Amino acid sequence: MNLDEGGLLPIFPKISSMKKLILLPVLGIFFNLSAQTPDQSQLETLTEANWQRGIQLLNELVSIPNDAYYPEQIEPNIQWCEQAFASRGWTSERLDTGGIPLLLSEKKQAGATKTALFYFHIDGQAVDRSKWNQDDPYQPTLKQQRADATWEIIPMDRLKAEYNPDWRIYGRSTSDDKGPFAMFLTAWDAMIEQGLTSDYHIKIILDFEEEQGSPRLPAAVVQYKEKLKADLMLIMDGPRHTSNLPTLSYGARGISELFLTTYGPKLPQHSGHYGNYAPNPALLMSQLLASMKDEEGRVIIPGFYDGINLTDTEKAILQAVPDDEIAIQKRLGLGRTDKVGQTYQESIQYPSLNIRGMRSAWVGPEARTIVPDLAVAELDMRLVPESDPERLFGLIKDHIRNQGFHIVEKDPTDEERMSNPKIVKVNTSISYQAFRTPMDSPTGAWLRKAMSRAFGQEPVQIRISGGSIPISPFVDALGIPAVTIPTVNADNNQHSPNENIRLGNYKEGILTILSVLTEPIY
Amino acid sequence: MNLDEGGLLPIFPKISSMKKLILLPVLGIFFNLSAQTPDQSQLETLTEANWQRGIQLLNELVSIPNDAYYPEQIEPNIQWCEQAFASRGWTSERLDTGGIPLLLSEKKQAGATKTALFYFHIDGQAVDRSKWNQDDPYQPTLKQQRADATWEIIPMDRLKAEYNPDWRIYGRSTSDDKGPFAMFLTAWDAMIEQGLTSDYHIKIILDFEEEQGSPRLPAAVVQYKEKLKADLMLIMDGPRHTSNLPTLSYGARGISELFLTTYGPKLPQHSGHYGNYAPNPALLMSQLLASMKDEEGRVIIPGFYDGINLTDTEKAILQAVPDDEIAIQKRLGLGRTDKVGQTYQESIQYPSLNIRGMRSAWVGPEARTIVPDLAVAELDMRLVPESDPERLFGLIKDHIRNQGFHIVEKDPTDEERMSNPKIVKVNTSISYQAFRTPMDSPTGAWLRKAMSRAFGQEPVQIRISGGSIPISPFVDALGIPAVTIPTVNADNNQHSPNENIRLGNYKEGILTILSVLTEPIY
Repeated sequence: MNLDEGGLLPIFPKISSMKKLILLPVLGIFFNLSAQTPDQSQLETLTEANWQRGIQLLNELVSIPNDAYYPEQIEPNIQWCEQAFASRGWTSERLDTGGIPLLLSEKKQAGATKTALFYFHIDGQAVDRSKWNQDDPYQPTLKQQRADATWEIIPMDRLKAEYNPDWRIYGRSTSDDKGPFAMFLTAWDAMIEQGLTSDYHIKIILDFEEEQGSPRLPAAVVQYKEKLKADLMLIMDGPRHTSNLPTLSYGARGISELFLTTYGPKLPQHSGHYGNYAPNPALLMSQLLASMKDEEGRVIIPGFYDGINLTDTEKAILQAVPDDEIAIQKRLGLGRTDKVGQTYQESIQYPSLNIRGMRSAWVGPEARTIVPDLAVAELDMRLVPESDPERLFGLIKDHIRNQGFHIVEKDPTDEERMSNPKIVKVNTSISYQAFRTPMDSPTGAWLRKAMSRAFGQEPVQIRISGGSIPISPFVDALGIPAVTIPTVNADNNQHSPNENIRLGNYKEGILTILSVLTEPIY
Repeated sequence: MNLDEGGLLPIFPKISSMKKLILLPVLGIFFNLSAQTPDQSQLETLTEANWQRGIQLLNELVSIPNDAYYPEQIEPNIQWCEQAFASRGWTSERLDTGGIPLLLSEKKQAGATKTALFYFHIDGQAVDRSKWNQDDPYQPTLKQQRADATWEIIPMDRLKAEYNPDWRIYGRSTSDDKGPFAMFLTAWDAMIEQGLTSDYHIKIILDFEEEQGSPRLPAAVVQYKEKLKADLMLIMDGPRHTSNLPTLSYGARGISELFLTTYGPKLPQHSGHYGNYAPNPALLMSQLLASMKDEEGRVIIPGFYDGINLTDTEKAILQAVPDDEIAIQKRLGLGRTDKVGQTYQESIQYPSLNIRGMRSAWVGPEARTIVPDLAVAELDMRLVPESDPERLFGLIKDHIRNQGFHIVEKDPTDEERMSNPKIVKVNTSISYQAFRTPMDSPTGAWLRKAMSRAFGQEPVQIRISGGSIPISPFVDALGIPAVTIPTVNADNNQHSPNENIRLGNYKEGILTILSVLTEPIY
C-alpha cells in the first residue's frame, strides 16, 4: 500500500506533536511488538506516529550549510552527526583521510552474528542562491503546488495538524542525501521506543565529500578495511524509479573518462589565408568521433560490448521495470533513442561512450575567422562489471590507430608534428568501477522480503542503475554484496536549484527503513 | 631592386631632415622630371629624400587612437585626414552612412580623362595594452632586433641620421592601414614638390569601420555610386607576399558563414541515466561534419567545386609565386596539408568550408557528466567568383537532408522534435562576395608596368588572395576592375599585439606609390 493514498490518516487524523508523545507508550503496549516482526499495518502506524518528529530532524540537519568545497562548512555537520549517534548510544569514530574525515558509527546488538554497513553522505551540491525560489537554500521551506504547477510557500507549522503527501520540503540536501539519514534516525528512534531491535550489528559510514567525487574514499576504505568489515552493504542514496514505486537497485555503472585532443596549425591561423591548406582539427575530431559509433548510437569498435549477453531471465527482469518510455521521450524531446539496447533498461546494461563536451576555438560573439589550433573532446565511459575500463581503453586506442592517428599523451613536439600527418592526444582516467550484486543473492532476497512486508508488494527491481556512485571501493575492498535502497522522489531537483523531498516519500522512506531494520537477517 | 639592400644609401648617406629640405629644390632642377616619367633611379632618389618626412606623418597619424568600437576615437582621425587633404588642395566630403561616415576626397587633374579610386581604411583593431611590449600601442615606437630575435626600443630620433631597413616602427595601424595612407601622402608631396603630376583624376575613399566589418559600406557604395564613379580601383591594404617582394593581388576571396546546431535532449541529462539512450548532439554534429569532407580535407558534396577549371596558363601563373611551402608547413607545424589544390596557391583558387569553431557543453574544469542538449558548429566558407554562395548553401542543405536530417531555421518545437529523428538548425550569412580582376586586363598591365619601372622586375602576382576585404561592393556597384597594391611586411602582427611596419617596406611603399602616381594611364 502506498502511504500517499492517505490510508493511515483515518487512524491518526490531524495528529499533533504533543498527542504523538502521549500516544507512544500506548502504541508500544498496543502492538506488543518486541517478540515479533511488525506487519505492514504496524509499520504504517509506527511511521504515522513518528514522521513529524522526523521532519524536525530533517529541518535541523538541512539548516546546516554543507558544501564540501568549503571544508569549514562540513565540521558542524560532522558534529551534529556525532551528537546524533552519541545521544542514541552508538559509538563513533572519525576516520582520518588526510582531508575531510569519514565518520564510522556502530551499534552492536546482543547475540547478533552479522553486520550491515549503511552508507549515507551528508555533504551537498553547491548552491546558486540566485536560482532558488526561496531566500535561503539552507532554510527548509514547505511548499504546495498551485493549479498552474508552480509552487507556493506555506508555513511549516501546518505540518503539526495537516498532511498532504504531495507537499514538499525544499532545501539543499533534503533528498540528496540528508533526507535519507534523517529518515534512518527517525526509524531507529521509532523502533527503539517500541522496544524493537535489529537482529544484526549496524555500522554506518558517513561520507562528507560525495559531491566532490569522494576523492579520498577509495584509499580510506582500503586503510580502514578491518573497521569497516561487514556482511552486506546498504546504500541509502539516490532516487526511486521514476514511477515513484518502492525500489531496490542492485548495482551501479562505473565511470571512466577519455580526453581527446586533435591538432591543426600550431597557432590559430587566418581562415582566409589557410582555409583549404592547414588541416582543421575540428574536422579531424569529428571524423574520429564519427568513426566510433553508427547512426543508432552503437559503438562499432570491435569487442566493446563483449561479455554482455542478456539471458531471457535477465531480459524478463528488465522488462518488469515499469518504465514509461513514451513519457521519457516526450519529457526529453527525443524523436528517437540510441539503439544500444531494445529498451531503456537494456541500454544501461551496456557500457556507454558519451561525448560530454567538445570544443574548438570559439562560437557566437567570440567567434573568429580562423583555422583553430586544437579541438578537444571529453567522453565519459560508463562501465558495467563486464567492461573492464583498461580493456576498453585498449580497444579504443587500437581503433584510433587504425584510423591513421599517431597517439601521444602530451602535446606533440615539432618533430612529432612534422612526422605524423594525424595526431591525437589521448588521456584516460577511471573514477569508479561498476558493481552489481546478483538479484538472487541472499541479500537481495532478504531486502525484497522486508520491502514486500512494508508495502504489500515487491519493489521495482533495478538490475544496475545508469549513474555511478563511489561504492565499488567497498565492494572490492570488503568483498561484500551491496544494494541501494533509494527512497526519494525522482523529480527532487537533485544537483540543481530547488532541491526538494516529497512528504509522501519521506514517510515511505521511514517505513522502508523500519522494514529493513526489523527484518530478521538471513 | 630591393631598397632593403641599401642601394640608395651611397647617394644620400646619413641624410638629415634639414639637409633634405635644402636638397629638394636642387633635386627638382637636377631631375627635370616634369616633362617625363621618372625612371627607377629617379624614383629611388625621390623616395630617399622624403621617407623621413613620411615617418613623421606616420607617427602623427598613428598616435591618434582609432578603435571604431568607440566612435568618439574616430572623429579626430577623420579631422586629421580632412586637414591633410585640405592642406594639399584636395576637396573632401563626408559621406553619411547613418553611423561613422566615409570620407571621399578628390583631386582633379587638368586634361585627365580617367579616374582612379584609391581605398584605405583608417580605423584599427582593438588593442589589449597588457600584451604590447611598449607602454602605449598608440605611441609609435622604433625597435631593432637583438641577436636573440627579441626587439629592443631605440630612440626615434636616430632616424634623423641613421637608417636600417630591418628596423621597425611598432604601433597600432602602422601597417593596417595607416601606414599605406601615410606613404601615399608622402609620395604625393614628393611628386608635387618635384613638379610632377598624375595624368588621371584621383579619388580616395577612406573607410573608418573596416575592422568592424564595414557594416554600412555596401549600402553607402550603392547610395553614392555617382560620387564614387571611377575607371579603376586600387586597394591600398594588406601585406605583400611572404617573400616580401613587391606584390600585386588581383582579387580576394569572399566570405560567408554557416551556423549549425544539432539537438540532443531538451535539457542536458545525466550521462549515467541517459548515456546509451538519449542521442548525443555532439556525435550527431561530428557525423554531419565528417560526412562533408574526405580524409584530405576536400569537400565531397557534389558540385561544390564546379566551375573552377584551372588552365595550364593559370597554373603557370600560380606556379610563379615564390611560395616556400616547406617553410610554411614548418612554421605552422603541419605534417600534411589539405589536398584541395596541389599547391598553396592552387588551394586558394577554390572555395573553402572551414570549421572555425565548435562547441557542445563544457570541457576542462567546467566539464559535467552529461548528455549535452546542443552542439554548435560555425563554418566559414571563403568564396571565389565561380562559387555563388547561395548555390553552395543549396548544395550543402541538400547534402544535409541526404544524411537524414530535418532542417530548421529556428530551435525546433516539441512537435518537430518528436516527429524528426535527426534535426539540424542551419543559418547562413554572406559577408563579402569574391572579386577577381583578370591579370591580363589593362589595369593589370598598367600596374605591372609601373612597378617594373620602380623595382626593375615584375612584381609577385597573386591571382586571388585567400582573405576577404570589403571591395566587392565597389566592384559590383561601380562595375570597375580592382587590384590590391600591398606594401607592408607580411610579419607585421596585423590584428595582434605589437603590430609594426618594417622601415624597408615603408620606403618601398612610398616608391611603389610614386611609380603608380607617375605612370601614364592606359
